[in-house]
Amino acid sequence: MINIGVVGYGYWGPNIVRNFNSLNDARVICVCDKNKKVLNSFQKHYPAVHTTTDFNQLITFPDINAIAIVTPVFTHYKLAKLALEKGKHVFVEKPFTSTVAQAEELIELADKNNLKIMVDHTFLFTGAVNKIKELVDNDTLGNLYYFDSTRVNLGLFQHDVNVIWDLAPHDLSIMDYIIDEKPESITASGKAHFNNGLEDIAYITVNFSNNMIAHFNVNWLSPVKVRSTLIGGEKKMLVWNDLDADEKVKVYDKGVKVDNKKGIYDLLVSYRSGDMFAPKVAQTEALKLETEHFIDCILNDKIPINDGHAGLRVVRILEASDKSLKNNGKMIQL
Amino acid sequence: MINIGVVGYGYWGPNIVRNFNSLNDARVICVCDKNKKVLNSFQKHYPAVHTTTDFNQLITFPDINAIAIVTPVFTHYKLAKLALEKGKHVFVEKPFTSTVAQAEELIELADKNNLKIMVDHTFLFTGAVNKIKELVDNDTLGNLYYFDSTRVNLGLFQHDVNVIWDLAPHDLSIMDYIIDEKPESITASGKAHFNNGLEDIAYITVNFSNNMIAHFNVNWLSPVKVRSTLIGGEKKMLVWNDLDADEKVKVYDKGVKVDNKKGIYDLLVSYRSGDMFAPKVAQTEALKLETEHFIDCILNDKIPINDGHAGLRVVRILEASDKSLKNNGKMIQL
Amino acid sequence: MINIGVVGYGYWGPNIVRNFNSLNDARVICVCDKNKKVLNSFQKHYPAVHTTTDFNQLITFPDINAIAIVTPVFTHYKLAKLALEKGKHVFVEKPFTSTVAQAEELIELADKNNLKIMVDHTFLFTGAVNKIKELVDNDTLGNLYYFDSTRVNLGLFQHDVNVIWDLAPHDLSIMDYIIDEKPESITASGKAHFNNGLEDIAYITVNFSNNMIAHFNVNWLSPVKVRSTLIGGEKKMLVWNDLDADEKVKVYDKGVKVDNKKGIYDLLVSYRSGDMFAPKVAQTEALKLETEHFIDCILNDKIPINDGHAGLRVVRILEASDKSLKNNGKMIQL
Amino acid sequence: MINIGVVGYGYWGPNIVRNFNSLNDARVICVCDKNKKVLNSFQKHYPAVHTTTDFNQLITFPDINAIAIVTPVFTHYKLAKLALEKGKHVFVEKPFTSTVAQAEELIELADKNNLKIMVDHTFLFTGAVNKIKELVDNDTLGNLYYFDSTRVNLGLFQHDVNVIWDLAPHDLSIMDYIIDEKPESITASGKAHFNNGLEDIAYITVNFSNNMIAHFNVNWLSPVKVRSTLIGGEKKMLVWNDLDADEKVKVYDKGVKVDNKKGIYDLLVSYRSGDMFAPKVAQTEALKLETEHFIDCILNDKIPINDGHAGLRVVRILEASDKSLKNNGKMIQL
Repeated sequence: MINIGVVGYGYWGPNIVRNFNSLNDARVICVCDKNKKVLNSFQKHYPAVHTTTDFNQLITFPDINAIAIVTPVFTHYKLAKLALEKGKHVFVEKPFTSTVAQAEELIELADKNNLKIMVDHTFLFTGAVNKIKELVDNDTLGNLYYFDSTRVNLGLFQHDVNVIWDLAPHDLSIMDYIIDEKPESITASGKAHFNNGLEDIAYITVNFSNNMIAHFNVNWLSPVKVRSTLIGGEKKMLVWNDLDADEKVKVYDKGVKVDNKKGIYDLLVSYRSGDMFAPKVAQTEALKLETEHFIDCILNDKIPINDGHAGLRVVRILEASDKSLKNNGKMIQL
Repeated sequence: MINIGVVGYGYWGPNIVRNFNSLNDARVICVCDKNKKVLNSFQKHYPAVHTTTDFNQLITFPDINAIAIVTPVFTHYKLAKLALEKGKHVFVEKPFTSTVAQAEELIELADKNNLKIMVDHTFLFTGAVNKIKELVDNDTLGNLYYFDSTRVNLGLFQHDVNVIWDLAPHDLSIMDYIIDEKPESITASGKAHFNNGLEDIAYITVNFSNNMIAHFNVNWLSPVKVRSTLIGGEKKMLVWNDLDADEKVKVYDKGVKVDNKKGIYDLLVSYRSGDMFAPKVAQTEALKLETEHFIDCILNDKIPINDGHAGLRVVRILEASDKSLKNNGKMIQL
Repeated sequence: MINIGVVGYGYWGPNIVRNFNSLNDARVICVCDKNKKVLNSFQKHYPAVHTTTDFNQLITFPDINAIAIVTPVFTHYKLAKLALEKGKHVFVEKPFTSTVAQAEELIELADKNNLKIMVDHTFLFTGAVNKIKELVDNDTLGNLYYFDSTRVNLGLFQHDVNVIWDLAPHDLSIMDYIIDEKPESITASGKAHFNNGLEDIAYITVNFSNNMIAHFNVNWLSPVKVRSTLIGGEKKMLVWNDLDADEKVKVYDKGVKVDNKKGIYDLLVSYRSGDMFAPKVAQTEALKLETEHFIDCILNDKIPINDGHAGLRVVRILEASDKSLKNNGKMIQL
Repeated sequence: MINIGVVGYGYWGPNIVRNFNSLNDARVICVCDKNKKVLNSFQKHYPAVHTTTDFNQLITFPDINAIAIVTPVFTHYKLAKLALEKGKHVFVEKPFTSTVAQAEELIELADKNNLKIMVDHTFLFTGAVNKIKELVDNDTLGNLYYFDSTRVNLGLFQHDVNVIWDLAPHDLSIMDYIIDEKPESITASGKAHFNNGLEDIAYITVNFSNNMIAHFNVNWLSPVKVRSTLIGGEKKMLVWNDLDADEKVKVYDKGVKVDNKKGIYDLLVSYRSGDMFAPKVAQTEALKLETEHFIDCILNDKIPINDGHAGLRVVRILEASDKSLKNNGKMIQL
């Protein structure tokens, strides 16, 4: 039985508590939030769970094995460090940290203390992403040409980070999971329309050493919600529309073959257009599978697929994006 | 009566001939193509129209007033120059020319000879674009925040230009028509997946002096066809889906108000979400209206809304995009 | 404070308990289910609420004011009768009863004892249905021509009633709420594909004394889920797609005008096609509003919009549908 | 070479002429219309084709082999009879005739004179319908449970027939083509909202001897255009959305298995839900294939898939629908 302490009971915290509590091998035994009113309301639903406003009390709570950090980004490093120093495993919201240096330090600390870090890249545990990974891994798509993601909606504006840090970690973690090649450089553009100076609309291009290119369109100012990703491969092409209730992933037997041995004016392009199929996608709640994976990794000393290194790779791109934004879209090497 | 000569009878030429011929004040009297077989087939449908494989014969054909140039981009400058030198008005496919310098020279030549240039920015004559322009001009949307366009599909690969020169002129000409502010700089990224070295997927960001940002996603390798543009304004936001048969333009009474006088942690963001409406959009064939406009401009000495200067503004961004692509996405001033 | 007893804690019961419990003026004090395991699981979440497997204990529980009946249709009459006889208000799942006679008896019994009956026609409390009622009542649509509803999906097969009794009550109660005219007669057709003899696919036509016609397509064997209703009016026409997350109700400024004074071959039909608009629709959970309404009706002696008479009118059509089905689609007067 | 005479050059006539003229083994040599202005306009596009306002002249025109009748329904019988009597093959618009008796007489007349009749059931030649037929014939769907079609839009009101005779022939001919079982009886309901007394909205249920049921929803008063058909089978289920440009036919690996050997309260229903696939569908113009088939049947003495008998089977249902409508939805045996 793994005893979990949770810090942060705002928008996402209730889901974390509910899911850890639904597992056979885990239970939440203490919840920490600086807001007393939130804790009072919490205890009506969970009378058996302790509460505290003091993080130090949480990490020293008797028999606590792991801390789930469900607080704003800028607090992750400090809270995770304290927890790891007290010998607790850490489950932390995405993005992992505010800087690459922080992420590297936490990974080292966890390694030294033989502790697990899991970064909450929830999408890696959805049926859709797992189906896509399967289709890439078993070469259904063939060599990949591009990964093009759009994640836009109205709000919610964050107070401390721009739209890239808020929305892109989802898609960056998915790209990181699906694509083996390592990103080499990035460029970013964007605009802050309000005078807090944080971009509310942004675009990132990620370049790879090979034929691949990735692009991310994130926007807090869109009148419509879009959650779609196109993945183009040599053999097949895929569209993932996460808002489609029943046919989230569509695989198109479409392709292009270009033969230009004789020079560009004899360029021979042939198009292939066949059937489309939408594989059945598992419906299990992603967070349930992710919290299970966390407990399994602790109990059986496994490496989480979304460990600190995965978190670090995402933060590296986020940090580079900020740097590119501040330098007129200059290409930043990763 | 304006007598038209047409050069180029490939994919688009038949539409040009059909539309000019349907007007009361115009008629096509000669068609030029280097392919004799194409001309033979043409004459079965239009036995009364002359044909030639010699462009010089076309521009010296008796009583010809204007030349419609419906050939690949790299020929536009040379053909237009010859036609203008012979005192003929010019209707030319988009993009106007291959370089800014060519466009400037042609504009000057036309001005000197008191001739009209019209660049075939067909979309400016669609019901949807005119409705959008009306909604922007009458301040329904309020100050604009962004213009975000996606134009992707499978093929058709061009032999001589990359996907930006092929697809983006549509959206750049629409942006130029709708938005009064002048673009200041651009960045571009993209990838050529085949060894002719021409990008088949590309992204352009256009920066404006004010609050605006524009972005263009063009792709020849998409399994699905997408033609959509989001325009965010202070008062209202708009989605244009050109593939929706009945509700192409949707206007959302949605918005964000950010008040951060007290500092970022007291940032107050309020969202407004009201009705949506889809205004009725005129269905008249755009090319019919455009060819009418050309004839009207010649007969009544008016300036086309899509004159050489409009063509030049688009070419300026295309040229800058190529420059940015060749320089690792470097920001190029316009 | 109204004390609620709930009988039946299967699929829908948890929603009933949660919503009554969230109100200021109500609380669930006892839950009855014949399944002990269900009650045990229930008490983990609601340790303060009593449980029983004995319905008589529920209706005689101290201080109980009202009974919510969330059990299969065939039990409604018996349970409601017992509750009303004990002087309890009754909230009962749709459809109200298995026969018209049962419904009439319960209404009379409630009237005699000055008790409220509310039939759980949840949809009447959705933002979409209320917006539609508003558009009909304020004559935006004009005189109504038709009401055409489709509610199809895969499963869930019921054991004791056919697809009409399972799915159509939703749409019949909505029609009853929105349309003032009284239905006069109905015809029904359908098919039972499995040997339990209960139709799994069925169609009902409802005829009105005036110009109106209504039609209901219900199906347990559809591979896709459809929830859509078309309402045609003289002035405007409306489409309600309940599966559209953001634009559930669309109002079309479309219409037909037929002038045939001169005989059918001079019939003059003119079509009008204008803007579409999708009014904002309230998002509050319908069941919350409905349970509030129930409490309000008890406390302030109001007549529920979904009272026993509304339930009876729906049962009348259901009963007639069965009769028509058994008589080769014969028209049944209501 | 088959020489075709065409009578009727209204909405559909131009498509008939264009397609017959595009074939290698056929040509239109004379066109008849009572409207002189129509004929004048026609001759500008087809200077080589003769015209006449006199049908007798058309059917006695030298070397004419076949007559295409593209006129209102009520004229079909008379015109076809005259043509057949003069020894001409007949291609006739749907629906074949106004009555069953007329259809039977024409079939007999054609048989006696060894002539072909083809009824213009164009949809039988679309890629979508042929793909569906293939999926039914090769047992991909398994035994069929239902065929449920919706064909609604705004207008066009016909002057001489109700909405059933106008729209349902499409779907009835498709059902007739796809489903081998013979329909046994029908019921119909509908409403005429305007005082010409012709129904503008109607519903037909077709019953089969076996497990099948079919239903048709036709409506001239819908604000939106819907063209969709659901076909439920024991093994798989299919949705045909004719308005979807790219994925018209979707096949769902979904199904229901009901086992109720132990009585209804132990009814065991299991659902299967697997992948969906959208087979590629041929894009060739249906009317081109249909006119080719007509010529092929004449030249090689084949029986058209859409011969007079197919036309008769459709008319039989149309006639029965009218009878049912006039008798309060009474079930009519076919």
